[in-house]
Amino acid sequence: MPDRRDHGGRLSGFGERLRRAWDARDSALCVGLDPDPARIPSVLGSGPGAILRFCTAIVDATADLVCAFKPQIAHFAAAGAERELEALCAHIRDRHPAAVLILDAKRGDIGDTAERYADEAFDRYGADAVTVNPYLGTDSLAPFLSRPGRAAIVLCRTSNAGSGEFQRHGEEPLFLRVARTAATTWSAMGEVGLVVGATYPGELAEVRAAAPSLPILVPGVGAQGGDAAAVVRAGRDGSGRGLIVNSSRAVLYAGDGPGFADAARAAAASTRDAIRAAHS
Amino acid sequence: MPDRRDHGGRLSGFGERLRRAWDARDSALCVGLDPDPARIPSVLGSGPGAILRFCTAIVDATADLVCAFKPQIAHFAAAGAERELEALCAHIRDRHPAAVLILDAKRGDIGDTAERYADEAFDRYGADAVTVNPYLGTDSLAPFLSRPGRAAIVLCRTSNAGSGEFQRHGEEPLFLRVARTAATTWSAMGEVGLVVGATYPGELAEVRAAAPSLPILVPGVGAQGGDAAAVVRAGRDGSGRGLIVNSSRAVLYAGDGPGFADAARAAAASTRDAIRAAHS
Repeated sequence: MPDRRDHGGRLSGFGERLRRAWDARDSALCVGLDPDPARIPSVLGSGPGAILRFCTAIVDATADLVCAFKPQIAHFAAAGAERELEALCAHIRDRHPAAVLILDAKRGDIGDTAERYADEAFDRYGADAVTVNPYLGTDSLAPFLSRPGRAAIVLCRTSNAGSGEFQRHGEEPLFLRVARTAATTWSAMGEVGLVVGATYPGELAEVRAAAPSLPILVPGVGAQGGDAAAVVRAGRDGSGRGLIVNSSRAVLYAGDGPGFADAARAAAASTRDAIRAAHS
Repeated sequence: MPDRRDHGGRLSGFGERLRRAWDARDSALCVGLDPDPARIPSVLGSGPGAILRFCTAIVDATADLVCAFKPQIAHFAAAGAERELEALCAHIRDRHPAAVLILDAKRGDIGDTAERYADEAFDRYGADAVTVNPYLGTDSLAPFLSRPGRAAIVLCRTSNAGSGEFQRHGEEPLFLRVARTAATTWSAMGEVGLVVGATYPGELAEVRAAAPSLPILVPGVGAQGGDAAAVVRAGRDGSGRGLIVNSSRAVLYAGDGPGFADAARAAAASTRDAIRAAHS
């Protein structure tokens, strides 16, 4: 299992690493790594090697602007690029140890199988946290929550147009019950965060009220149209932090020629600045 | 994309392939392929190669007893054995074309990412169907439902002890709303099935009433203790079919020495017979 040790050699947990990343960079920005082979600049070639070269260039161009990186595993799996995802995660851990590494996999299963998904995220890819789906209940999350120093970031209220269909089911909407359970039961079992889309700032505020101190991963800023200022107002915690604001496509595909990494850096800086301004 | 053609060369869809498999084998048994490296007979060696040798031997020993095989991807991913899973799926498609191939992955995401998960299941592994999680709503399932001839098998009421926590949330329990949506909206969008654990036969009957004609994948028979006769009574459809009854560990680990494949065959035959007897 890859260690996540700070400079003094102590093991540090997800929450502590995240607080340090927020402070070191004064940034709540997370860059999502969702490589689309059709949009990778042609100067990088093609195939799994191009996916790795592209993501590595984006990571190196933006690492001092972010608190976290979030590779999305489907984009690697569809291309048969698991070895390249391993290499990318190792690169992030080794070269940019201040950045928190979140594997976006939205896993969810029971018993032995959930244990194997935890092995995949934490042992194989060395992630600090993995996104998981709560539909199967608390016992399905235990294998993720029981890993010392690692975290489960649980889907709560997602950013897609149809997300309310089941997430708002019930008199107490299901997503609020998930948030409440995360703040109580799951927090007592290990380190936990929540996913709430930027597209629903009103519900982000409800989740923050239900889970005052949990980190919240917020996708949907940038290409999905979420407003960074509204997200920060609705989602920050009592200390003024608490958010991991993800942008993927608006950063990755800011430019498409040989200067793609500079364009990505400029887009990331501008998003970081917008989030930072909203915090002040 | 691997074609799923019948002997006449026509493309046939998931539902048609499943009906033929039920009839050809007079069997509702599905063997789940969840290879645990610690339990693979030592005569097969170790590492990803042993995983492939073990699963191939189980498949060849049981293919005439089953309607379907269900590889569980976490067990391959944790071992870095995606290439071996590709080879196993190709072996099932090529050598045992009558068996339906279900990739158990419990995927769930939105937009482009859901498309990539559909590519993974249907293009890379050539599955006839993939298990998916409904928490993100109908739009998240569309990329799986829109593939001609393939199917999404949606988690409804899972077999774990804690599954009621969110699946029973709401005045209309969430799992019944999922079943009702599957029988109406999702059936109109493509081919769909449901997952209902064998451990809750009463709720299996409720799902069957809400979705009279959908195939239901039932894990939890065998090692998880579900009762095959109760499952069949509660879950069969009006035609007397409709169930894909999965057994994994009780078949895979029926023996642990050089005769493991014969022991697996005997366990599969006995489970098939119990399910068959319950149908009559």
